[in-house]
Parts: sequence; structure tokens; C-alpha cells
Amino acid sequence: MDRARLALNQYTVRPWTLAQAIEACIRHEIPAIAVWRDKLAELGLARARRSLHDAGLRVSSLCRGGFFPAATERERTERVDDTRRALADAADLGAPALVLVCGPPPPGVSLADARAMVEHGIAALASEAEALGVRLAIEPLHPMMIAERSVITTLGEANAIADRIGSPAVGVIADVYHIFWDPQVRAELARAGARIAGFHLSDWTTPSGDVTADRAMIGDGIIDIAGLAADVARAGYRGDIEIEILNARAWAAGDLEAWLATALARYAAIDDGALTSRRT
Amino acid sequence: MDRARLALNQYTVRPWTLAQAIEACIRHEIPAIAVWRDKLAELGLARARRSLHDAGLRVSSLCRGGFFPAATERERTERVDDTRRALADAADLGAPALVLVCGPPPPGVSLADARAMVEHGIAALASEAEALGVRLAIEPLHPMMIAERSVITTLGEANAIADRIGSPAVGVIADVYHIFWDPQVRAELARAGARIAGFHLSDWTTPSGDVTADRAMIGDGIIDIAGLAADVARAGYRGDIEIEILNARAWAAGDLEAWLATALARYAAIDDGALTSRRT
Repeated sequence: MDRARLALNQYTVRPWTLAQAIEACIRHEIPAIAVWRDKLAELGLARARRSLHDAGLRVSSLCRGGFFPAATERERTERVDDTRRALADAADLGAPALVLVCGPPPPGVSLADARAMVEHGIAALASEAEALGVRLAIEPLHPMMIAERSVITTLGEANAIADRIGSPAVGVIADVYHIFWDPQVRAELARAGARIAGFHLSDWTTPSGDVTADRAMIGDGIIDIAGLAADVARAGYRGDIEIEILNARAWAAGDLEAWLATALARYAAIDDGALTSRRT
Repeated sequence: MDRARLALNQYTVRPWTLAQAIEACIRHEIPAIAVWRDKLAELGLARARRSLHDAGLRVSSLCRGGFFPAATERERTERVDDTRRALADAADLGAPALVLVCGPPPPGVSLADARAMVEHGIAALASEAEALGVRLAIEPLHPMMIAERSVITTLGEANAIADRIGSPAVGVIADVYHIFWDPQVRAELARAGARIAGFHLSDWTTPSGDVTADRAMIGDGIIDIAGLAADVARAGYRGDIEIEILNARAWAAGDLEAWLATALARYAAIDDGALTSRRT
């Protein structure tokens, strides 16, 4: 198996600390990791940087900033300030992208206004992100998450925001779980092109509980991962590919080593040159 | 309250028989009802027609045909034949539209191929539908239902299919629950125009269980119903407006009379001329 572009999003094994996740990457020869801020805060930035360096691990992305829509100007400024701090941490860890979960509509705020708040928040940070060399990576989330996570639900919207802001520091995340259903997905991946700042893998079965953490193991659902990988490669993306399988049952079941081993085997079984082509 | 365009989709009170639902329409002065085929089969077509006529009720739509994607040619033909029978029943009841739930992808069939099967199935029935005076009304379902109900997830896809088939008998259903999240919803409602064959109301809160029957009471969620109603009116739709709130907890709780009364009060509270403008 060619692991050159493989990354472990640490929420795949969420109960583990960052130190444990780093050890797992070493154990499984995974060259990159996506770090979550709550886990980073537990370990501390300086210790985390040292541990990642000692392990020889790249950071594929930092998760996450965003949540821009808020009812008051003051709260909106706080969200931007928080995302600014995350950008600095991402730069410190050498992460090329900060994943943005854009946020739900606050009570009484229309979707249109909430979407405008997202765009305003990203625009406010674009030049700082460019200076830091970190991309603000808009991750459209599945439309079922609109009331609790993200008013940005399609690559089309993410591309439109990036077009309007017009900064090379604004990117998009292609997560198969969030985008596979979209009849425009191929066209929007092509339109995204060099803007693609991450490619995330899991699979889709109809969620039966929590809409956020009921993602299926790669290969257990209906997503044409190889097809989407080919589209992403055709768009020019050659960066890290994250295994990101948020699943509350796997977290609770306690055998995260088996969960990770299965994910790695399924990744290896995806028969597609698009996953293994040279990383740039 | 102006009830001229009000219709009760009978699955709002699913545990009731068709006879009970008809009685509820009389009791609450609801002039139209959306009939489901399983309930119609229980009562029998002839008796149902007579009961509806005696009650002076219009049938806003018959639910449902479709489920076109299937693994074999024989199954696909069966699905078309079944939808043909539903068309005949709709015509018999004087329903202007047969709602199409287009179906999920069969195992091993790509979304693109499944979508082509949907289009093929609808195209096969368009001239018969036109002769019967019943519209084949494509209902895009929320993308979270793609693996179990419908590969058609947006009004954009429904409009594209209708454009390609080019028959006046192909319509679309605008159900706020399924379309509110879509950043293209206003543009696609305008594009649909005279093709709109139904307008369905419920509300959105994040589902916590069954993705099909966890719809919120009108007014309890985040959908801008008045805004969508205005868009639908602007597109030219003047037909019936269905209250369709599929909620398994309400069905199980047993007080369907209270559930219906609340829905009617919430309908009346939607402050918008678009709901009450003249029915044509």
C-alpha cells in the first residue's frame, strides 16, 4: 500500500489523546495527521509541535475554525478572533489548511443572512491567512447538518464564496460524506481546481441517530470513493488524503485499534491510482 | 383563516384510516386531501371515490409512484407498471398530480445510472399521464434520504429532468422540508414556474432518529415558510397547499386530533398572502 498521501484525522479515533494518535501514526506508518484543537489544547501547542516533529509527522490540517454566524456583532467578532488564533496555531504546526466549519443560523437569522456572515468572516481573515501561508478551507457539510453545524451545504456555495473573496488563501475541503449526493459534485470539483485544500474519506449509510457521528467505515456504504478520488485528482489535488470516520458507536465500543486497522485496510483496497499518485 | 387552498396530507395523521382522515377534513373544514395508496387500498378505490365525493373533498395529490431504479430490466418494468396503475387511480380520484418518490440506488448501481433510470421511467409514462390529465410530480427529497428513498435530491435535478423530457405532464413538488436548505432554491422555484404541481409544509429541526418521519411541526423549526411560500406564489403556483408533517412520535403518541389542530393553527399563523391568494 502506498501511504505517501495518507493522513489520519484524529477524530477517527476520537477517544485517544493527541499523543496516543501520534503513536498510532508511527505504529501504522501513517505520515500525516489532522489535529483537532480540543486535543491540541490538552497537550499544549509547544509539546504538540515537538511530538509531531519527533515523530516525523506532517499536519494535514487543523480542525477547526469558523462558526461565523452569530446574533450580535460582538459575538461575530469573537468568532473571527477565535479563527484568527486557530490560523496562528495552524501556521505554528506547519498545517497547510485550517478547516472551517461555517456554523448554523442563529435563532431568528435567515439562511441568507447567516451565509453572508460566513463570507464576511472569511473575507476578514483572508489576507492574514495568506501572510501565514495557511489556507482557510471551507468545508461544505451535508445539508442535514444545516441547523446545527453549517449553513454552507454544497461545494457550489463554497466555490462561490471563494470566487467573490478572490484570495488564494481561501480553499475548499472535499469530504466525500458531505458532497457525494450532489448532482453537481463533478462540475464543482473541477471548478474548485487548485482551491481544493483537503480530501476526506468515510462512507455513507443512512444515519440512524447523531447526524454528525454516524459515518460509515470506508467500503460499507454507497459512496463511489474511487470515482470521487479520480475527480479530485483530475482537478489537480495532490495533497494529503484524510481518513476521517466520525462514528460514535466505534468510539464507545472501545477497540479503536481494530477500527483504525480496518480503515487502513479499506483505504488500501480502494483500487485507484488517484489515491497513490505522487504527493506534491 | 382562509382555507381555500388548504389540503391535509393524510400521513400527517398516518394512523387514521382514509375514512377517518376524510371525517377530520369535514370536521375542520379542510377542502382537500392528499391520499396515500396504502390507505386507498384498504378502503378500496370505488368506496374512496364515493366517500370523497360525498364529503365534497378535492384530492390534492395521490402519494405515491416512482422507485424507478432497480437492478434488473424486469424490476424496472414492474416499477413503471406500478406507477402506471397509480396514475390511473389518481385520474379516477380527480387528483391533478401523482407524487413521485424516485427511489434509492440499487446495490452496485451508481448514482448517475440510478438517476438515468428515474428519467427513463418518467419519460416512459409522460404521454399516458398527459392523456389522463395527471401530472407526474417529481419530489426531490432531502439528500439525507438518498440511500433509502430518492436519488433526486434537488429541485435543480427535477427541473433538468423535466426540461429534457419536455412534456407538460412532468411537474415538480416543492416540499419545504426537502428544499429549504438549498442555496439555489429561489432560482429553481422560479425556473420551475408552471411546473410546480404541489407545495408541502412542515418544518425542520435536526432529525434524531428516522430521517423520514422526524419532521417538525410548522413553526417549530428553522424553515422560512412564508419566504418560500412567496417564492412559490411568484413562480405562479395557485394550487393546493398540503400540510404534510410525517412524525413518528406524534403517530405513536396517539393524540392525532391535537396534532392536527396545532398544525391548522400554525398554518393560520403563517403571515403571508401567498398562502391565501386565490386558488386557480
